[in-house]
Amino acid sequence: MKELSKLMDFRPDIRVVDATLRDGGLVNDFYFTDEFVKALYAANLKAGVDYMEFGYKASSEMFDPDKFGKWKFCKDEDIRQIVGDNETDLKIAVMADVGRCDYQKDIIERSESPIDLIRVATYMNSIPTAVDMIEDAAKKGYETTCNIMAISNAQEADVKAALDMLGKTPVNGLYIVDSYGALYPEQIARIVDLFMNAAEKYGKKVGIHAHNNQQLAFANTIEAVGDGADWLDATYGNMGRGAGNCAMELLLGFLKNPKYKVYPVIQFIERYMTAMKESVTWGYDVQYLLTGLLNQHPRAAIQFTREERKDYAEFYKELIVQD
Amino acid sequence: MKELSKLMDFRPDIRVVDATLRDGGLVNDFYFTDEFVKALYAANLKAGVDYMEFGYKASSEMFDPDKFGKWKFCKDEDIRQIVGDNETDLKIAVMADVGRCDYQKDIIERSESPIDLIRVATYMNSIPTAVDMIEDAAKKGYETTCNIMAISNAQEADVKAALDMLGKTPVNGLYIVDSYGALYPEQIARIVDLFMNAAEKYGKKVGIHAHNNQQLAFANTIEAVGDGADWLDATYGNMGRGAGNCAMELLLGFLKNPKYKVYPVIQFIERYMTAMKESVTWGYDVQYLLTGLLNQHPRAAIQFTREERKDYAEFYKELIVQD
Repeated sequence: MKELSKLMDFRPDIRVVDATLRDGGLVNDFYFTDEFVKALYAANLKAGVDYMEFGYKASSEMFDPDKFGKWKFCKDEDIRQIVGDNETDLKIAVMADVGRCDYQKDIIERSESPIDLIRVATYMNSIPTAVDMIEDAAKKGYETTCNIMAISNAQEADVKAALDMLGKTPVNGLYIVDSYGALYPEQIARIVDLFMNAAEKYGKKVGIHAHNNQQLAFANTIEAVGDGADWLDATYGNMGRGAGNCAMELLLGFLKNPKYKVYPVIQFIERYMTAMKESVTWGYDVQYLLTGLLNQHPRAAIQFTREERKDYAEFYKELIVQD
Repeated sequence: MKELSKLMDFRPDIRVVDATLRDGGLVNDFYFTDEFVKALYAANLKAGVDYMEFGYKASSEMFDPDKFGKWKFCKDEDIRQIVGDNETDLKIAVMADVGRCDYQKDIIERSESPIDLIRVATYMNSIPTAVDMIEDAAKKGYETTCNIMAISNAQEADVKAALDMLGKTPVNGLYIVDSYGALYPEQIARIVDLFMNAAEKYGKKVGIHAHNNQQLAFANTIEAVGDGADWLDATYGNMGRGAGNCAMELLLGFLKNPKYKVYPVIQFIERYMTAMKESVTWGYDVQYLLTGLLNQHPRAAIQFTREERKDYAEFYKELIVQD
């Protein structure tokens, strides 16, 4: 059982990362209005959020800029248009995917950029490229995290090896990403333990990014907090790919640090997310539960949602017959 | 951290209670069609559910039978119309509220009734009446549980005293009811510990009934399982008062006992719950999060929902100004 004193008090090391534009962008192809993004930035400032992730630094060679909103590419000038010189305590983050980012070229010196944090997203099989991206970004002056996706499919021995490789880089944070929303809190406890061992050895922080396939994104996030994770991802109204993420309004309600305020989040949801929900679909539903339960990528469930199918039982049969 | 062997294996003592008609009845005034109830009974049989709660044994002196569906009253003949003599392994439960049930008269001898389990629901201030109801039902031959509501508002010393009083009765199960959906898993762990101490002393079982105000109904239920609770309430599609309950489809996906099957639950949801959702409203929303966060009864949030209000920020201010 966790210590009572730890539940009543707070750890000043905790960092809340708003991933609404980035993970939420996956459900609206990053077409957010400037008004929305400016209001979100203002809400994050008022709510005491520590980092705001604007989107991806995606390769414009690989992805057609005419087919996505600008936050898939997060050009420095587009961020500046929202935040100016960002003379605030809110830091700016972007995600750089292994194999989908021209990082040498598109990520410039931090001193020239409004961005503070580069989050390198990788699967277990591309850790060496992630290491190169982390070193590149760190050399340019950025804070960095490494977000290891699909952790529920990784072998413990491989995770240990990857954490040892990453421990030797300048990376600041090691992120557990439950991409499939497949993990239960008890499994999160074990994985955080694994990450914490490496983090303590190498002087890193541990982060958590959860998905809500089994209505556990918030529960898994607070489980991880109790186990020592300091960097916590959340999105307004759970907005995110498939079943969505840990809700910011739940997370800030839980955290005890008086700097965090839930009221600006509620205001933002009322003004912007309710309308967003009318045109864009995300959030817990049976099809996402099923891919989560079966520890599968949600792509089949996303397709099921797009086709407005409701034949959950047939879908279940499709998922388990994997000839 | 919980033992790995306990997570991979299962406890044969676990009992799953389907509370769809009872807690779900609170959102549709118990107007379920006979077709729905028969199909639910069939689904529970196929899914391996242990108990099906049909509704309340409410006093027809206090409540007008013309203003509610029949499952608010659960007459024995109405249950028989669905289950016949119920020659199955699925047991039949009803809830009897302290102060709202003419138990001496309306609960007949078990040998004459299709009902197996009487669930006595009480607040902390009416334990002596609950004790009388438990003794009455036990004398008539029923299994009994005592469901202590609004546990998040109870003092630990009072809970201990109540558990000692209940421990000396013939009650089979001591139920933790998070009526306000206010508790975090870490608090559940502490409360289960309190209940387990009494349960072990008196040879009782512990149960959990969770609400989903903070998207934690499932997480709190599986936390309680890991801590030793054996009786678990769930509802199809989370159907229940306000933010709803722990979803049956999530719970059966988690439990490892091969007797539990998730497929019949998915089938039932597809055939019946999707349609139900079109005419009846329940489930997680910001207003329920707020009452849960503030550890308040959800009645203001239910009213907010009924009025189709969406001004969450104003509602938050109403909740915190309690002059």
